[in-house]
Amino acid sequence: MADRLPVIVFDVNETLSDMTPLARRFADVGAPEHLAALWFSSVLRDGFALTAAGSQQPFAAIATGVLRTLFSGLDLTRDTDAAIEHVVQGFGELGTHPDVVAGVRALHEAGFRLVTLSNGAARVAEGLLTRAGIRDRFERLLSVEDAGAWKPAHAAYAHAADTCGVDLSDTLLVAVHPWDLDGAARAGMATAYVDRTGAPYPAHLTAPTHTVAALPDLVDRLV
Amino acid sequence: MADRLPVIVFDVNETLSDMTPLARRFADVGAPEHLAALWFSSVLRDGFALTAAGSQQPFAAIATGVLRTLFSGLDLTRDTDAAIEHVVQGFGELGTHPDVVAGVRALHEAGFRLVTLSNGAARVAEGLLTRAGIRDRFERLLSVEDAGAWKPAHAAYAHAADTCGVDLSDTLLVAVHPWDLDGAARAGMATAYVDRTGAPYPAHLTAPTHTVAALPDLVDRLV
Repeated sequence: MADRLPVIVFDVNETLSDMTPLARRFADVGAPEHLAALWFSSVLRDGFALTAAGSQQPFAAIATGVLRTLFSGLDLTRDTDAAIEHVVQGFGELGTHPDVVAGVRALHEAGFRLVTLSNGAARVAEGLLTRAGIRDRFERLLSVEDAGAWKPAHAAYAHAADTCGVDLSDTLLVAVHPWDLDGAARAGMATAYVDRTGAPYPAHLTAPTHTVAALPDLVDRLV
Repeated sequence: MADRLPVIVFDVNETLSDMTPLARRFADVGAPEHLAALWFSSVLRDGFALTAAGSQQPFAAIATGVLRTLFSGLDLTRDTDAAIEHVVQGFGELGTHPDVVAGVRALHEAGFRLVTLSNGAARVAEGLLTRAGIRDRFERLLSVEDAGAWKPAHAAYAHAADTCGVDLSDTLLVAVHPWDLDGAARAGMATAYVDRTGAPYPAHLTAPTHTVAALPDLVDRLV
């Protein structure tokens, strides 16, 4: 770590937001709740596929397209467009995990610059952090829509560092997703894995610099 | 389509092989069968993430790593390593979809050169096609392990064309996965979507050149 404090770059979906309520929205429309995890995984799969092929689409467009495929052939309680709309709207009403508010405040009060970098739209992070009362702790809310590539491509992380006016080596990514921590590490960032589940970190992806069970624990690691 | 017949490049997992029996292997070890779809989607997600970040790992390493994460916290009927082994071994015992043998024979007899290109190991395709009695119809069984990048990166498709001694514009990819057809189209290939489920083709990915419900239908489209 450099002498000065790193700029802390937070992933948003699942790292700051608790996506659990989305599963209930699948049940609301007559679909199995377990499809929520498959949906999110498949959205990332297609987003990364486009990235690997040198292209890009908005997160919301992929989220909608994958839902339409997953809902095909199911006996839903409302028409497909309304069911898709109901699930997708859930993204705009999520709350933060219980450790997030205290962790963000502590990092901010310790003097760190805080930003977000999401594969989704910046307005999703804006709503989430505003509802949680911690929007003012963040300097910028960034989206890969302005980077030309989704995470975990190098260009996405470079966009965050460039926008903050620092080198990648002076930034640290906070995420719950090993694929994100791997990409950030390959781009030259330090990384912090928020491990809320205790699942083993996959051996096929670069191990994180720091591992914490909850966000407030990160302050002691970094200061 | 060029005057001469295109070289037909087949995807393997799910396009030629019927992966349905893998779900039963999850049940065998005490895990929910619906995890099979999440597993495959997550393996592709991590493989594509590494591709987008400029790296690569063998399919089998990612398959094992993702299973270890998915099995964490479950009350399995055998120890985790044995459960992982049981599921992964299933890849080596799959059969082909009912339309594959007739389709491959018809395409071969119509004079097409046939190869496979898999994100998995070539030995998986070797076993699958040998068990189905159609190994001799294929000129080569290719893996992205020799391409430097997974599909849907351009380099993977270029490896297949280069190995066959033709331009990408003289090749056609056959697959059930829209992300694969999208990448192949971006690389300059013609594409054929084998749509066995009737699910809508996602609007966020490049539409295929041809769509068929079963492989034998492709012969009429191409000749």
